[in-house]
Amino acid sequence: MLETNDQNRVRTLTLNRPEALNAFNNPQFDEVAEAFLAAREDDDVRVVVLTGAGRAFSAGADLSEAGRTAKVVHGFGGMAHIIAEFPKPFVVAVNGLGVGVGATVCGLADFAFMAAGARLRCPFSELGLVAEAGSTMTFPALMGRQKAAWMLMSSDWMSAEQCKDMGLVLDVFPDDVFAEEVHQRAAKLAALPPGPIAAAKRLINGPEIGRLKAVIDAENAELAGLSGGPANLEAVTAFREKRPPDFSTL
Amino acid sequence: MLETNDQNRVRTLTLNRPEALNAFNNPQFDEVAEAFLAAREDDDVRVVVLTGAGRAFSAGADLSEAGRTAKVVHGFGGMAHIIAEFPKPFVVAVNGLGVGVGATVCGLADFAFMAAGARLRCPFSELGLVAEAGSTMTFPALMGRQKAAWMLMSSDWMSAEQCKDMGLVLDVFPDDVFAEEVHQRAAKLAALPPGPIAAAKRLINGPEIGRLKAVIDAENAELAGLSGGPANLEAVTAFREKRPPDFSTL
Amino acid sequence: MLETNDQNRVRTLTLNRPEALNAFNNPQFDEVAEAFLAAREDDDVRVVVLTGAGRAFSAGADLSEAGRTAKVVHGFGGMAHIIAEFPKPFVVAVNGLGVGVGATVCGLADFAFMAAGARLRCPFSELGLVAEAGSTMTFPALMGRQKAAWMLMSSDWMSAEQCKDMGLVLDVFPDDVFAEEVHQRAAKLAALPPGPIAAAKRLINGPEIGRLKAVIDAENAELAGLSGGPANLEAVTAFREKRPPDFSTL
Repeated sequence: MLETNDQNRVRTLTLNRPEALNAFNNPQFDEVAEAFLAAREDDDVRVVVLTGAGRAFSAGADLSEAGRTAKVVHGFGGMAHIIAEFPKPFVVAVNGLGVGVGATVCGLADFAFMAAGARLRCPFSELGLVAEAGSTMTFPALMGRQKAAWMLMSSDWMSAEQCKDMGLVLDVFPDDVFAEEVHQRAAKLAALPPGPIAAAKRLINGPEIGRLKAVIDAENAELAGLSGGPANLEAVTAFREKRPPDFSTL
Repeated sequence: MLETNDQNRVRTLTLNRPEALNAFNNPQFDEVAEAFLAAREDDDVRVVVLTGAGRAFSAGADLSEAGRTAKVVHGFGGMAHIIAEFPKPFVVAVNGLGVGVGATVCGLADFAFMAAGARLRCPFSELGLVAEAGSTMTFPALMGRQKAAWMLMSSDWMSAEQCKDMGLVLDVFPDDVFAEEVHQRAAKLAALPPGPIAAAKRLINGPEIGRLKAVIDAENAELAGLSGGPANLEAVTAFREKRPPDFSTL
Repeated sequence: MLETNDQNRVRTLTLNRPEALNAFNNPQFDEVAEAFLAAREDDDVRVVVLTGAGRAFSAGADLSEAGRTAKVVHGFGGMAHIIAEFPKPFVVAVNGLGVGVGATVCGLADFAFMAAGARLRCPFSELGLVAEAGSTMTFPALMGRQKAAWMLMSSDWMSAEQCKDMGLVLDVFPDDVFAEEVHQRAAKLAALPPGPIAAAKRLINGPEIGRLKAVIDAENAELAGLSGGPANLEAVTAFREKRPPDFSTL
């Protein structure tokens, strides 16, 4: 479900469950985590790009799989920790719609790019849940606390141009040349000497990794407390009953 | 002097001393502080909006009242601490001119909005004083250190568009629909489930509340040292004598 | 090699080795460091401006002088610490091209301005080295981590408009009025009372000075490890042999 392609010392990881809009389930969290661990050790890999197959980037965590926790090795939290500690440049290529972790993963990237037609959405509040993947720390740092809080609380869709203006992604390219433009930038980084690039990433990110991992854990603790709670149940029930949720009595 | 209006679970607090351009005096600091404490406990209040009556938002601390410290319960510092700790979304609606704390309070907001014709100004240096309400921490985080230092040191007026570009306010609306546009956004937040919204605010703001309160205290200590000092006296004297202040010999 | 001019309580320091595009060598690091120490003690100096003579701002550290470390008093690291601790407003006026420390010094400024025709570049990775002068901390704080990492890793040239959009400089002025526009703003700050201005800078910068100095030291330790290493040697050799460097086998 995760395709791997190496070119010009750039490893491209492609989420490939287009029938589920590349939603993450538990096996996929583990697969991505293992892919980062492998890329870390592989001297032929200098940059990792994460993108999606088909028209979506990722629809987020697959709620239909919730509860099926058997065989989890790293899980969502483990994957987020491994990405936070990844010592080489990590590029997120948002080729299409991104929802939930399909949006918040941009905050873990060294560089995120977005196709002009792509959109991002963080529907946590609407689902009775809360933001994750370190986004409550990375988003305020990238865009300021007001824009971050609005994006993480409001559940509004954000266009590619809005995401660029806010600083969540570095640049936006037309859909038809998107993959090529991203690869060109990743290859540029991969042609630079790996030692100095790793030193730069260590200096820029290093002092914050411990705090980022603690934030990821704090978010997951809040998520665990909210999951299955009254707001989350009302959201799920309303979805099944095809009506808007009513949180007025909570 | 503080009007309270509840609608759609949004509590709107309106500074209502239009004859003084809604300047804060000591009773008003206490009144606002008490209003936040009451809103915190009231389950029917999910979002608080602070705005001003008439054409001004707030002309800042009322200097004509300086020294009349009798009957202070919370005071300026206490109010700032209480707002810093407020656990529900806090929206600042800058309906007209804002000066001093009428500008710096935007840094304490989760979301600030500004009417197109409004302007903000931080005339601390010109008055021989220094910035407060945590703005020496919140402004650099919102807009970067250079823009923040210029706004907090230069005493320049900033237009609504400038404030939006810098990230001090989330959005700007035409004056005639301003109150309505702000209420719509506040009501949107108030319709979302309160537990998940509180969790989001806790994750985003929580880790910084202790530091923010320490910064508020450090600013107030600097203010106390400067108040009545030579620069402040020259500013006050020049104002009375209707001449520009001369700080060249300080 | 460093010209000093006082006007309106503004001290302008002009890097004046136009034949070397105002590149820094060890005597110049010391000269700038001593100039800041002197300006700190001089009550007639309220603001310091750093700019360059001729068409360049500064081409960075003069690599032709590397290794000649005799007679170093403060050196690069000492200069950076002294600037980090300077208690009065420090303005960088990027009058022309800036490379390396000629770009990263903007992060140490309270206010940086840029001539419309100026450009900045951080070619550290391309030289097998890594960013310095605290830029791995100051750039992410000014522009967000993605833009900062791209500017510090990619070696791309950045135009004046790009630098303004990113927040690295506060404003851009046409080349022919640049010096005058910058002086006007510096003189405005110098006409404000020095005590309150120093208090504002203390509140805004003070809490981060210790961390900034530690980052400067950490960067210099990484630089020392990379200098003379395989990537740096390949960069220097390729430059001498007038060919593009090849980092593919490192």
